[in-house]
Amino acid sequence: MLPIYNVPDAQVSILKRRMVGERAYPERLLAGVERIFGEGVTPEQAVKRILESVRLEGDEALRRWSEKIDGVKLDSFRVPASSFAEAMGSLPPRLIEALRTAAERIRSFHRRQPIPSWEENGLGQRFTPVERVGVYVPGGSAPLPSSLLMSVIPAQVAGVEEIIVCTPPEPHPAILAAAAICGVESVYRLGGAQAIAAMAFGTESLPKVDKIVGAGNVFVTLAKKQVYGLVGLDGLAGPTETMVIADATANPDWVAADLLAQAEHDPLATAILLTPDLALAKAVQQAVERQLPRLSRREIIRQSLESNGGIVLVRDLDEAARLADEFAPEHLCLSVAEPRPLMDKIRNAGGFFLGEYSFEVLGDYVAGPSHVMPTSGTARFASPLNVYDFLKISSVIGLEPSLARELSAVSAEIAHAEGLTAHAAAAELRLGGAPLPTE
Amino acid sequence: MLPIYNVPDAQVSILKRRMVGERAYPERLLAGVERIFGEGVTPEQAVKRILESVRLEGDEALRRWSEKIDGVKLDSFRVPASSFAEAMGSLPPRLIEALRTAAERIRSFHRRQPIPSWEENGLGQRFTPVERVGVYVPGGSAPLPSSLLMSVIPAQVAGVEEIIVCTPPEPHPAILAAAAICGVESVYRLGGAQAIAAMAFGTESLPKVDKIVGAGNVFVTLAKKQVYGLVGLDGLAGPTETMVIADATANPDWVAADLLAQAEHDPLATAILLTPDLALAKAVQQAVERQLPRLSRREIIRQSLESNGGIVLVRDLDEAARLADEFAPEHLCLSVAEPRPLMDKIRNAGGFFLGEYSFEVLGDYVAGPSHVMPTSGTARFASPLNVYDFLKISSVIGLEPSLARELSAVSAEIAHAEGLTAHAAAAELRLGGAPLPTE
Repeated sequence: MLPIYNVPDAQVSILKRRMVGERAYPERLLAGVERIFGEGVTPEQAVKRILESVRLEGDEALRRWSEKIDGVKLDSFRVPASSFAEAMGSLPPRLIEALRTAAERIRSFHRRQPIPSWEENGLGQRFTPVERVGVYVPGGSAPLPSSLLMSVIPAQVAGVEEIIVCTPPEPHPAILAAAAICGVESVYRLGGAQAIAAMAFGTESLPKVDKIVGAGNVFVTLAKKQVYGLVGLDGLAGPTETMVIADATANPDWVAADLLAQAEHDPLATAILLTPDLALAKAVQQAVERQLPRLSRREIIRQSLESNGGIVLVRDLDEAARLADEFAPEHLCLSVAEPRPLMDKIRNAGGFFLGEYSFEVLGDYVAGPSHVMPTSGTARFASPLNVYDFLKISSVIGLEPSLARELSAVSAEIAHAEGLTAHAAAAELRLGGAPLPTE
Repeated sequence: MLPIYNVPDAQVSILKRRMVGERAYPERLLAGVERIFGEGVTPEQAVKRILESVRLEGDEALRRWSEKIDGVKLDSFRVPASSFAEAMGSLPPRLIEALRTAAERIRSFHRRQPIPSWEENGLGQRFTPVERVGVYVPGGSAPLPSSLLMSVIPAQVAGVEEIIVCTPPEPHPAILAAAAICGVESVYRLGGAQAIAAMAFGTESLPKVDKIVGAGNVFVTLAKKQVYGLVGLDGLAGPTETMVIADATANPDWVAADLLAQAEHDPLATAILLTPDLALAKAVQQAVERQLPRLSRREIIRQSLESNGGIVLVRDLDEAARLADEFAPEHLCLSVAEPRPLMDKIRNAGGFFLGEYSFEVLGDYVAGPSHVMPTSGTARFASPLNVYDFLKISSVIGLEPSLARELSAVSAEIAHAEGLTAHAAAAELRLGGAPLPTE
């Protein structure tokens, strides 16, 4: 089920990044769009229609789409205050405790991120929090209370005043418990493109936010792309990915378990092992077969591994590092004897997991860094969700008049070259040029 | 020409932020699209067509669009090495000197921005530079060598290895001189959506970049929006804006000159004064009339001020602060006796200009911070271009086995609640669960 590739074959198959427009939508998704929106409507057009209607009609449109798409009639969207306590009461205390531990570790990690406002001789950069943030928490096939913690807490650490959460109706109690644990009171039962529209434009029931973060299904992603620029975004999430680099010292059962954990997210998820050790490769292959039958999501795992997964036999760890750097995986697990020197050879990865005790699942829940990490190769330019996503910089310019005068002459020179005579005039006035002050 | 508003009237006119879809394209632009692309093609569709063809046909498509849109036949796109020296030689030495001073100050400012990689107990955040960056430098009605410096230098300070510049044919010598001054060798004569396409997808002549920065016309902005997610972006730029808050101590001629400088960029540019002082308001009105006739771009200025500019009479500086915070201007100039306490009341602005010697034009050229700042109210969530735009964070997770085991139990608990049994299994293996290691 987990094929072994040589490098050239892997580079044209599982290691090849697909470009925008090259990945077709699943048939089922297209059929769903056709059923709701009519023949020949693309997912992009469907999302555009949802956005437009929410912008113009507000709550009324939200109700209509929730009924048509999610099959629920909603009078109000906001989860009532009483539901949080009920949710907490309905869950096993050990789970509540685990979520609390996770929340504390996530908070403590993000509190260590420095907020480096500075000023020197009147010039500087000032960091201030974004005022209002919307967090999307997916429902879907596995409800993820961890996603709520991983998005909300970095925003709280940054000092965001108002955080609202949208999640599809009806939210799992664990999601409401996670909200209660981190003190979020505004949770709305809205999913898909309509949730993104509500947060981007505001309606009678929801305030317009300044920034939207969190991953969702393809409609969420298309909607985020369409409101990009109107609100800030954390990025566009693709299917999740783990790459493992392992040497002969790795435990094949553990490597197999880590690949299986990755694959169970989604048939589109990617789990790839790079190793120079053929014996390990074969042992991992066998361990995957052995472990699979007792996993509840084995059908999803099978689809994921067969379409996107595999083992790549590399010459040595240096070659593995080069391939990983080019692939720029969301998660990069270094299950090797000496992970740190290997990490130093690689620039592009959302998260580095050093050694086989720092396995990816710990990062999903409790290690501390946000599990919202850049996918689809965007680790080449993007970062895991972090405190800076919820801060913005203002440049500060407060110069001494003597220096300002000196620089005014320089500015006037460039302004004239750019043909901007009003710019030049503003500078020349500071040099005492005409028109002179009128007092 | 510069009308005086009370606050309620201003809030429904010049201070009202237009939402996406509410701003119509100018007739001339639509006519141009129709002429090249045929009847009924929207600017979005035209840009989509350009992107698709460049993705599929590479250089061939670039040649075709450059001829159709820019009216130039290009054999090669890259500016030959000899052109830089020629450009330097063709310009007045004082201008070269001014550009050098600007470059030095921009570099020195950005070098002060801390790069706060950290690690503690095996957890941390590692900053590394983006490998390849594309910078768009607009040509248009005023060639802006300053824009090249303001985008390229923060990338260089971040440690970006490869920077390529696209600018419409034929570039002004001052733009080539600016490239030479900061040591950029890869300049391509490509403008508009085709330039963005070339950098986003790569062609035979241009390498695919990881991130694209820099402002341009509406086609550039639409193209950036369409490639968002495939490459990183600095944001989507709208027309430039300056808000001035002034009290009775301000020099009305200087305030007028600053508003005029802003307005000369673009008929869509916004220049707004907030003041509690009616006498100052009237004096600025008169000064604008007096200064305008001798400015070369007076027609652009007139259009800008009449459509988007104005003076808002506020009750006091606190009210001005509240209105500015809500407007979130790109540039906020505090021409008041005590600018710092006023700044402390305002969160949302791309740049604060403190006192009337720190005027906006200094920021355009030589103060130090990048003049690429967030427009259209995006200062609520976005920052001026800075070193962090060219770095990305990787999370580092390298835990001690004893702590990892403890956290594995917590992870398994949450994984079970999420219905992710493969996640739980990976965690339980670290706790010594079956299947045991096979050695």
